[in-house]
Amino acid sequence: MKNFFNVVDIDTVCAQRTLFSVVGSEWVPLGSAGGRILAETVTADLDIPGFARSTMDGYALQGSATFGASESNPAYLEIVGSVAMGEQPDIQIGPGQAVRIATGGMLPVGADAVVMIEHTEVLDDSTIEVYKSVAPGQYVVARGEDIAAGDRLLIRGQILRPQEAGLLAALGHEKVHVYRKPRVGIISTGDEVVPVTAVPGPGQIRDVNSTTLAAMTLAAGGEPRSYGIVHDSFDFLKSTCSRALAENDMILVSGGSSVGMRDFTIQAFDAQPDAEIMIHGVSISPGKPTILGRSGDKPMWGIPGHVTSAMVVFRVLVEPFVAHLGGFDDRFRQRFTVSARLTRNLSSSQGRVDFVRVRLLEQDGLWHAEPVLGKSGLIQTMVKADGLVRIAAEAEGLDKDDTVAVEMM
Amino acid sequence: MKNFFNVVDIDTVCAQRTLFSVVGSEWVPLGSAGGRILAETVTADLDIPGFARSTMDGYALQGSATFGASESNPAYLEIVGSVAMGEQPDIQIGPGQAVRIATGGMLPVGADAVVMIEHTEVLDDSTIEVYKSVAPGQYVVARGEDIAAGDRLLIRGQILRPQEAGLLAALGHEKVHVYRKPRVGIISTGDEVVPVTAVPGPGQIRDVNSTTLAAMTLAAGGEPRSYGIVHDSFDFLKSTCSRALAENDMILVSGGSSVGMRDFTIQAFDAQPDAEIMIHGVSISPGKPTILGRSGDKPMWGIPGHVTSAMVVFRVLVEPFVAHLGGFDDRFRQRFTVSARLTRNLSSSQGRVDFVRVRLLEQDGLWHAEPVLGKSGLIQTMVKADGLVRIAAEAEGLDKDDTVAVEMM
Repeated sequence: MKNFFNVVDIDTVCAQRTLFSVVGSEWVPLGSAGGRILAETVTADLDIPGFARSTMDGYALQGSATFGASESNPAYLEIVGSVAMGEQPDIQIGPGQAVRIATGGMLPVGADAVVMIEHTEVLDDSTIEVYKSVAPGQYVVARGEDIAAGDRLLIRGQILRPQEAGLLAALGHEKVHVYRKPRVGIISTGDEVVPVTAVPGPGQIRDVNSTTLAAMTLAAGGEPRSYGIVHDSFDFLKSTCSRALAENDMILVSGGSSVGMRDFTIQAFDAQPDAEIMIHGVSISPGKPTILGRSGDKPMWGIPGHVTSAMVVFRVLVEPFVAHLGGFDDRFRQRFTVSARLTRNLSSSQGRVDFVRVRLLEQDGLWHAEPVLGKSGLIQTMVKADGLVRIAAEAEGLDKDDTVAVEMM
Repeated sequence: MKNFFNVVDIDTVCAQRTLFSVVGSEWVPLGSAGGRILAETVTADLDIPGFARSTMDGYALQGSATFGASESNPAYLEIVGSVAMGEQPDIQIGPGQAVRIATGGMLPVGADAVVMIEHTEVLDDSTIEVYKSVAPGQYVVARGEDIAAGDRLLIRGQILRPQEAGLLAALGHEKVHVYRKPRVGIISTGDEVVPVTAVPGPGQIRDVNSTTLAAMTLAAGGEPRSYGIVHDSFDFLKSTCSRALAENDMILVSGGSSVGMRDFTIQAFDAQPDAEIMIHGVSISPGKPTILGRSGDKPMWGIPGHVTSAMVVFRVLVEPFVAHLGGFDDRFRQRFTVSARLTRNLSSSQGRVDFVRVRLLEQDGLWHAEPVLGKSGLIQTMVKADGLVRIAAEAEGLDKDDTVAVEMM
């Protein structure tokens, strides 16, 4: 077989991403910060809570006043008032005294614990019985127990989930400093490809990759921008790449799986300012004829036209670049997978990583991974699949009943 | 212990969701359909591809003309032309004839297979040698092999991933009929709660739940709308609930974990038109004092003020309601979990489902789930956690080294 290119492995491709700069940052309202990447490390400037706080409805007291108390031998305490929510109590309590307090109330000076209302009995307006020994600290969140001033809480490069947004709210951040979403210019190629709006004639198919790659870019935290379809014209491909490079942080040319078109893509990349073809051919299946180039500080991808190949290449190779450009710190990457049992043998070629589409089926409380068969040009195979199983380059395949790690798509 | 309410289990609460109507639908551009719920079943109105298509660069031919061909005994074929991409070839081929074809090209009449260019040698302008026997159908995607006209492809109520969006593109759908995002009105309560913009005085804390619950609503496919903080005034809570009910499909009142405030919430719910308190108390921890009511056809939730409790209740109970209102068909629900080994014993009370926050750590290629300790009021515990482990109601706990299913947060 004629060798069109020198293939390299997945890690070699992914390692290239650190050669590219991270995009700039911007401030966004806290309400739209979910899923964004933090552009600065956040340190607490106050204690949270700022005061010792009750976690129960009951009475604030000195725990020592109840030591040894029981149903048969209750402790008697004097009620000296009650704590109003959201206010600093002006009462100070001594041993043998207690104040009524609700969940979230601030403990008065002198109190170190709360007894649940269920463990007390009111005797009269100013006296309660306590039936349980209350340890100091019981049902109290101490000042600074959640967050202490000076704590480094969130790290630049981490992704913001609802809880991190909540933590920023607790610290009073109305706006959040995040990385801008990397802009990705998407170009489809191929003389046989027509827009979604067109009715395909004989020999023609509608452009699917512009839609799937834009949706995957969005899901990966990028901002897609479509440049439509370029038919097999070198000049038009070159000028479209130039325009897309000027307006984006990365470009993605899909299609051109035919040798002639692939040559056009390489030539169009080469014709950009400060251009270099870094990778041509990756030892994965599907997705082998993938091209990675750069123009200055911007990555240029040439990815296969078959929809499944394009999606696998995006997931495995392009997505880490989107994350890197978008400021994501790889220390935080944890690609969680679903453990499943393979339903049949799978063969694969050594020397390349095979990605097999699988559907997950639950049976007896276990997940079973059933390979979805079909050629890589068929979008239905991706629609039927829940995720991908990776067959390592050195493996000849996987056996039925092997436990596999499914990467969800 | 005094019983404030009759607790019910998680399934009983979740089953209530089907009593509520699904929201209406709308048309959105294909580019923003990712993550939305399809509001109609989609059937193919055409074959895809609409023609037999080559998946390789090579020659289209009749496979039978190559039977028995090998390196030592090649088949000789006459080249009668080439296929232009995106056009219907006007050539018809017979046995012993071949045409040049690129990946994606349409097979001419008479051809039933493609031989890869690598398995051929050009002898002269009109003759090739073929070194391999080619089976009919080889390197060809048949007409309708991906999608056949009349196939039911996507089902009402399923969520749209990039591949489903791509399939809709292939069918020529520029716009997609999806369910409207359910609108969720979010109200925080508590005299001690101040806005994110305020500096908390003694006894006060900033409103965290409005932020976390809005972010979780967005992630669940809903559209959050904040109604700020209601201090402990029955009239104001009642009128705010009324306003939020008028403008949303569901309301979410957080806070009011103190008995007094909880009573206010129930009374405010009860004061709405056609109101009913359906659930008061759920056998989960954290999150027991949860309230579910309805006003007409709209759910009203009263959920605990502690941030962790609020997040767990949202995940376990509220999220299925957002999904249901948003048209999601539960047949498609597959809550995938990460298998991990527990790093320590965990005790729990029988009769309730305990949700324990865990951090996932990788060690020797396995995930280990390390419980994050801390009171449920502490947001840091959620920030440190990757997910939740469920301890069943009938269990007394879990043992170190047990394999647990982690639900990612």
